[in-house]
Amino acid sequence: MAAELFREIDQCVTAPRGFRAGTTACGIKSDAGIKDLAILVSDVPCVAAGTFTTSATKAAPVMVCQERLKAGKAQAVIVNSGNANCATGAQGLQNAYRMTELVAEQFGLDKDLVLCSSTGIIGRQLPMEKIEAGVRNIELSSANGNDFSVAIMTTDTRPKRIALEFEIDDRTVRLGGVTKGSGMIYPNMATMLCYLTTDAAVEQEWLQHELRAAVADTFNMISVDGDMSTNDTCLIFANGLAGNNPLNARHPQAETFRQALNSMLRYLAREMARDGEGATKLMTVNVRGARSKADAVKAARSITLSPLWQCAVAGSDPNWGRITAALGASGCELDQNTYDIYIGDVQLLKAGLPLNYDQAQAKAAMLGDEVTITIDLHLGEGTATAWGCDLTHGYIDENTLYTR
Amino acid sequence: MAAELFREIDQCVTAPRGFRAGTTACGIKSDAGIKDLAILVSDVPCVAAGTFTTSATKAAPVMVCQERLKAGKAQAVIVNSGNANCATGAQGLQNAYRMTELVAEQFGLDKDLVLCSSTGIIGRQLPMEKIEAGVRNIELSSANGNDFSVAIMTTDTRPKRIALEFEIDDRTVRLGGVTKGSGMIYPNMATMLCYLTTDAAVEQEWLQHELRAAVADTFNMISVDGDMSTNDTCLIFANGLAGNNPLNARHPQAETFRQALNSMLRYLAREMARDGEGATKLMTVNVRGARSKADAVKAARSITLSPLWQCAVAGSDPNWGRITAALGASGCELDQNTYDIYIGDVQLLKAGLPLNYDQAQAKAAMLGDEVTITIDLHLGEGTATAWGCDLTHGYIDENTLYTR
Repeated sequence: MAAELFREIDQCVTAPRGFRAGTTACGIKSDAGIKDLAILVSDVPCVAAGTFTTSATKAAPVMVCQERLKAGKAQAVIVNSGNANCATGAQGLQNAYRMTELVAEQFGLDKDLVLCSSTGIIGRQLPMEKIEAGVRNIELSSANGNDFSVAIMTTDTRPKRIALEFEIDDRTVRLGGVTKGSGMIYPNMATMLCYLTTDAAVEQEWLQHELRAAVADTFNMISVDGDMSTNDTCLIFANGLAGNNPLNARHPQAETFRQALNSMLRYLAREMARDGEGATKLMTVNVRGARSKADAVKAARSITLSPLWQCAVAGSDPNWGRITAALGASGCELDQNTYDIYIGDVQLLKAGLPLNYDQAQAKAAMLGDEVTITIDLHLGEGTATAWGCDLTHGYIDENTLYTR
Repeated sequence: MAAELFREIDQCVTAPRGFRAGTTACGIKSDAGIKDLAILVSDVPCVAAGTFTTSATKAAPVMVCQERLKAGKAQAVIVNSGNANCATGAQGLQNAYRMTELVAEQFGLDKDLVLCSSTGIIGRQLPMEKIEAGVRNIELSSANGNDFSVAIMTTDTRPKRIALEFEIDDRTVRLGGVTKGSGMIYPNMATMLCYLTTDAAVEQEWLQHELRAAVADTFNMISVDGDMSTNDTCLIFANGLAGNNPLNARHPQAETFRQALNSMLRYLAREMARDGEGATKLMTVNVRGARSKADAVKAARSITLSPLWQCAVAGSDPNWGRITAALGASGCELDQNTYDIYIGDVQLLKAGLPLNYDQAQAKAAMLGDEVTITIDLHLGEGTATAWGCDLTHGYIDENTLYTR
């Protein structure tokens, strides 16, 4: 976090003015008492934007969000864990709409301003009676942001949440965020979910543009296993209660908001990669000197996605041949006589050939719980950073030993 | 194997007339006495063709093969295991050429007709003195085909080899083949290698075309971990000693040769997938009803490449939500209201919705050492088959616990 611009504060999504949350255990998950239903509501309608999975088998709630966000406005979201409402056909779509109606009825909102998300098992209809009872049971409070971050978890070992405070037009503006998951993070389940709130006033078109750009550089650059989910959703709600002049590309402090948003998403993305199934290490891959940004993205992602290199990271083995192979297979433009590879601060390759580096230093650079690989292709100005994790027995156990 | 057209015979690459092979342990691999050098020679110059890795970090021997095969002729190949001769720069390229010269000198061949392959550790120069002594030590015999199939192995648990016999122009024609590896199959190593021999007379252009087509449907449709190697090589040598009229697209028995070649490559591809690192099950994914063949290929490969589904296969868990997710993420055109999924003979989904199938039957269809998934997209005529394997602790162990 760039401490100069932002201050970290508590309660994540309910830190901005006018946002309240509530959670309950309504029995969707088989484990009794585990929270599986959460609602986030703004006191006033918000400018809203979203990004979603590009899967061709996307879940019903994703379709509902995409439909409703065409208007660029929203005021609430309801989230359940334990059931993905995916591969559920017309009934599933009807149930997703019904979830939003329940929230609208309970809290006196326009149903067209209510969004929904689901994460969990694919191919089962939602238990609507339990959800209906759950919604009636939920009480909203601005002190429940942290509870919200916990209720949306599936195999996450810890919640991922943050809130920042900064100034726009001499008003104190707050931005809060929570995420769960990382790629396909749960057996037969799915889904990265992310909810962002701000009390800044923001023009919708610019908000959508900035969200998409920030997601491209952060959430779209993390991977655990390369599996894309049917339910991935990232939503941002801006209710304007801070009273600033609406942010847009011409606002003199647009860059402050942009940097806060990017810092927040980068933090949350890294936390998701670090908490990947079975992960013991966070891997960061920096690529520079690529012919284009697209090439840098290909190269960086290819290395985080290589199971062989992920295994080397698990074993703290500076086995750079696997980086070379992943780089070669990535599809990025590459000259075998110009690329450099570093692990941590130790340069292993220069101009495509191994240096006589210190093996112990290279090993030492792999031993911590964060491993950083840097590639310089020396072909242009393209840069990118991707995050991933190691591949361990823990991943196999979580995903093999599952029983319905 | 289609028994009507072909008969299986012994000695793989030396089964066709006029091919001899020899192997030795020259000390490239650290384990003393393990064979690591192999040579295959035809008595007469051959029409030859090849397909290679598309990696941007391809190894020196791949460059040598690609250069020499421009002439469409070859007579021999030398293969070492234990060192990939990759990321070795100008010196590596010089060493690769030198390997071919050693074979030419030893066996009285034109060096421009000698090809070479390497598989093993990336980033080390070849021990040329050991290779020189090894070449001098090798004796060629038509009884050594099976030895050849063993000498090129790295982490393979068993050799993959086959030979077929069939008739062209009333001549008995033989076709032999060996492979090693499967994707990136060895720690810090690489490489699928395949060598095919035939005594059929074949026109070069048609041979190259047929090889490329057969590889596209077989070797390019297998995966273990999605990692492409720097050294992948598939070579075919046709020496014409069977005395048939040269095969080309207009030859009345072109289809016989095509089917023999395809059957052989499919057999070898399946054997490689079955022997993937840590694999306990062969996975076959059949896709039909796709809008195009390209779409079918995307869909089939996406399922074999999903680590989550590979873990489900390991656990014999008919967890079809992971198939749905992989299918959705594949990029193939898909209608959520039309696709069917089968595991073995058990239909799990019809028109995108789960059937009330028998859970025990679905589980039973996963229990054997071969699991077959069939997807019907009901959108067109495109079909494809991909092969893969499960993902187990064995894979993690082989690739994490490695030490240089």
